[in-house]
Parts: sequence; C-alpha cells; structure tokens
Amino acid sequence: MTRASGAGLPAVAILCGRGDFPLLAARSARSAGREVFLVGIRGIAGPEIAAFPHIWLGLGEIGAFLDALRQRAISRLAIIGGMTRPAFTDLRIDFGGLRKVPELARLFLGGDNHLLAGVLGILEQEGLTIVGVQEIAPDLLAPSGTWSKAAPDRQSQDDIALALQYINAASPYDVGQAVIVAGRRIVAVEAAEGTDAMIERVAQLRSDGRLRLAGRTGLLVKAPKRGQDLRIDLPAIGPRTLELATLAGLAGIGLAAGQVLVLDRLQLAAQANAAGLFLLGFDPLRELGFDPLREH
Amino acid sequence: MTRASGAGLPAVAILCGRGDFPLLAARSARSAGREVFLVGIRGIAGPEIAAFPHIWLGLGEIGAFLDALRQRAISRLAIIGGMTRPAFTDLRIDFGGLRKVPELARLFLGGDNHLLAGVLGILEQEGLTIVGVQEIAPDLLAPSGTWSKAAPDRQSQDDIALALQYINAASPYDVGQAVIVAGRRIVAVEAAEGTDAMIERVAQLRSDGRLRLAGRTGLLVKAPKRGQDLRIDLPAIGPRTLELATLAGLAGIGLAAGQVLVLDRLQLAAQANAAGLFLLGFDPLRELGFDPLREH
Repeated sequence: MTRASGAGLPAVAILCGRGDFPLLAARSARSAGREVFLVGIRGIAGPEIAAFPHIWLGLGEIGAFLDALRQRAISRLAIIGGMTRPAFTDLRIDFGGLRKVPELARLFLGGDNHLLAGVLGILEQEGLTIVGVQEIAPDLLAPSGTWSKAAPDRQSQDDIALALQYINAASPYDVGQAVIVAGRRIVAVEAAEGTDAMIERVAQLRSDGRLRLAGRTGLLVKAPKRGQDLRIDLPAIGPRTLELATLAGLAGIGLAAGQVLVLDRLQLAAQANAAGLFLLGFDPLRELGFDPLREH
Repeated sequence: MTRASGAGLPAVAILCGRGDFPLLAARSARSAGREVFLVGIRGIAGPEIAAFPHIWLGLGEIGAFLDALRQRAISRLAIIGGMTRPAFTDLRIDFGGLRKVPELARLFLGGDNHLLAGVLGILEQEGLTIVGVQEIAPDLLAPSGTWSKAAPDRQSQDDIALALQYINAASPYDVGQAVIVAGRRIVAVEAAEGTDAMIERVAQLRSDGRLRLAGRTGLLVKAPKRGQDLRIDLPAIGPRTLELATLAGLAGIGLAAGQVLVLDRLQLAAQANAAGLFLLGFDPLRELGFDPLREH
C-alpha cells in the first residue's frame, strides 16, 4: 500500500547517488505535491539531502533499505544520480540482504546495463515500483526543439541522425551514450571515461591540430542506449558539459528529448546563448529519416 | 606494362606516409626480389626513404605522381604509413591532376573510408593496380596464434569475441578499429584520437580509481573495420603500443591475424615476455562462435 499525499500523488523514495540531480528531483517532486523520502548512499550522495526526510545507507545495506521503505509504506522508488560501479567485494551486504547474494554476484559479471536491470528486478521482486524522472520531475529532462538562440543547420541534423544510428548500433555493447560528430565523421565515442573526458579529448585533438576542423563546428549528441530502461541511469548534461563543448569549438549539443537529464535548462540556455552554441532536443523515435526541425 | 625484376616479381611503387612501415615494407619487398620505387609524401614521409630509388611529392601532385610511375613502367602501387587526413583546401593540385578536382572534392565530404576508397578508385582508373602489404611484405603482419610466452585465458577469448562483434557493428560508422575490453565490458573505443591515446586513457582511469579492475586484466583488440579494403590503411601496433598496454595494466593484445601491421614481431614478443603480456593473432573469419585457441 502506498501512502498518498494531499495532492493525490503517491509518496516516492529517491535513492540518491552523486551530483545535484537527486536533490533537484526531490524539490521538483515536492513542488508537485508528493511526499518525498531520500535514501542517501553513504560516501556518494551529497550532504544536502538532509533538507528532506532521509536516511543514510551503505550500498550493501539492502535489508535496512527495504525495511525503511516498508515502515513508511512507500512503494515507489526513483534511483537518481551518478554511482560509481562498485566492486562486488566492496559491497557490505547486511543481514536482510544475505539471501540476495547469489543473484547479486551473478549480476556483477555483466555490463552496467545488465547490473542495473538485475538490481531493478530484485527491488521489484520486493514489491517496489521503480519510477523514472519522467514521472516525478519531468522539468529536469531535455525539452523538445531548439531552446537556444542559435539553431542547428542542415548539416547538424544529418550529424544527429548519424550519431543516433551509431548509438543504436553500439547499444548492445553498453557503450556510446554520447558521441561527437564533426564534418560528417564520428570523432569521439564515450565509453568508461564519461562525457566530460570525451569532450576534453576533442578539444585537445583540435588544439594539437590532429583534428582539423574549421571554425565552430561539430556537435555533442547524447541519448540513452537503445532498449535502455528509461527509469534509471539517464544520460545527463550540465553547465560543465556546455563549458567543455564551447572549449572544444563545437557548434551545439543535441539531446534525446525527454530522455536526457539537464542541470538547469534556463541557465544552460543563457550560457549557450552567450557562447553562440545551439541546444536541441530531438525526437529519438524519428531517428530514421530523421528531421528534428520540421514539424510534420 | 609492368617491368619484372630478376626474381619474376613485378616492380612496385610505395606511396610512403608517416612512420617506419613504408621503409620496412620496401626492405621486405626488395629482399623478396622486387624492384622498389618510393614516393615520399613531402612533410609526412621520413628522410630514410632516400635509401631507395625515390621521389618527393606534395599530396596534390597527382599528375607528377602518375608520370613518375609511367616513366618507370611501374603499374603496381602500395600505399603504406600514416597520413593525416588533409583539408581539401590544403591540397595543391598540380596541372596533371586538375581534371580530378571535382571527383576529389566530393570524396572529401565523407568519412576516411569513403575518401580512401575514392582515391584508390581514381588511381585504378589511371591503370594502377593497388596491392597490399599482404602481397609485398607479409612478414610485417600479425601472425596467427599466440606468439608470446603468456597465453590468453578463456575470459580473454570471450573478450575478443565481444570486441570483434562491436567492431563489426561500429564499422559502418568509420570508428572503432581498436577497443579495450576489461571485465567483460568495453571500456574504451578508439575514434579520432588513435590507439595510443585510447590506451593512455584507460591507464589514467585505472590510476584515478574511476575504472576499478583487479590485477593485470583486460586486453586491447585491433582489427580492420568490417568490409574495409585490406590493401590500405591497416591498423598497426608497435613497441609503444605494448609499453602503453603494460602501463594500463592490460593482460594482452589480440590482433586480427594477417590484417594488422606489427612493427618488429620479434622485439615485440621479447617485450611482451618481459612484461608478462600475451600477444595473440586471431582469425577474424571465425569471429562468430569464435574460438581463437582451438584448432579445428
């Protein structure tokens, strides 16, 4: 049974990882009238979560985690914020979590997608409903269309289509949620290093002259992997992403609308306008025969 | 008509890019009894090519290039060594090359594969036969099987299969001739930065603790893109690749046998043996249901 708040929206627990998104999502959900309970992962989530009803737990304290939600009659859970993939041997599984050990151990043998999907499965077996940012804080997601003064040109649209086709092709291999396309070529692909390091690499290649591109050109494209569970682990961008994209001489950023977390849309738009970059939310469903700028 | 050498092998011209491979290929071809004529690309090829009959030309001197080969009645051409993709506007097309300008300009609109395939097409129209390292210097290519004291374990074989499947999937996008797989995950994918920078990245991620892997683990896999013309632009490794792989804590290197250039096999084996890494040439045709260690 789920406790309902005054506004009729069910209460939600947020399992909080690194970064600003857990707290932003909590604020957004509370503004919408939800009761919010935060579970901070010790050593990972920031101290700001103390602004809400919360507990702190280690990653292996599965028993204590489930008990805390049951006591509060909360059955909806969002998982938000960056988490470094732990080594299985670093998990300190508590007594209540012991019976999950064999299943967990197996999950650690695959890629990140496999691990996350498995963890969600375990939580669902315990009666929890996993909800995404879409449900509790949609204002944190990339909007649809251009939301900067600069707009993508025809070439950028083709580049987005190319990037999406690649992201789809690479999806089974758990890599490439972000790529940089410039001059009709994919010049960088993200794997374990993360988006920031990938953009910095392109900035370096351009300043070294190893990647020769004229003027402000190329774009960063981010989208979830094909078939990814959109309730968890969405790609994200923020002011630092845009700073680096500017440094790398890119013309803009294209994001899968509604599927990429954006840290402060308005600030990001102001920053993009100052630097002359475009920000585009494209419809990932139109990726084949893709045309993000034309309406019907 | 092609002038034949004493050994009956036709003479070959080598268009020489950066690095040691052009000269090594020239030596190997001459040892096999071929007459060898080198064409050094000005500003790119090294001065050592002067040890052979040679000329120096700028990248745009297409007319002079074709004339030089015709004068010597050489119709077989190998293209060897790294070349930075030039900007079309940096080419100084000579008089004899002017009629190729529209075709060349179009080629510069696509990826590297597209550009190379187009350039080969133009050269073939002029009556040249493009030959690969396979034909003139097969001793420079990765041998088949393990050629180090250390041998890959079962996990490494699975990792090679994963890497090859990814390389095939990414091939249409002109990226990913090299990847690093560790703990059943693809942790790095090469695009414009090149193999060395990709390995350095993994070394950095491991030393930062952002990529947590126990002991000497993971491997570098290099193979041509699926459908690539194997006469040109083969992937390559050398002592520096192995140094960096050692630094990155990798367990070994897997190469598509006969399809990856290896700078000094014997020295590389000695270096691998000293560091405890394995060197494996796998059969890329067996990539599905792949088992590089079992014979038949």
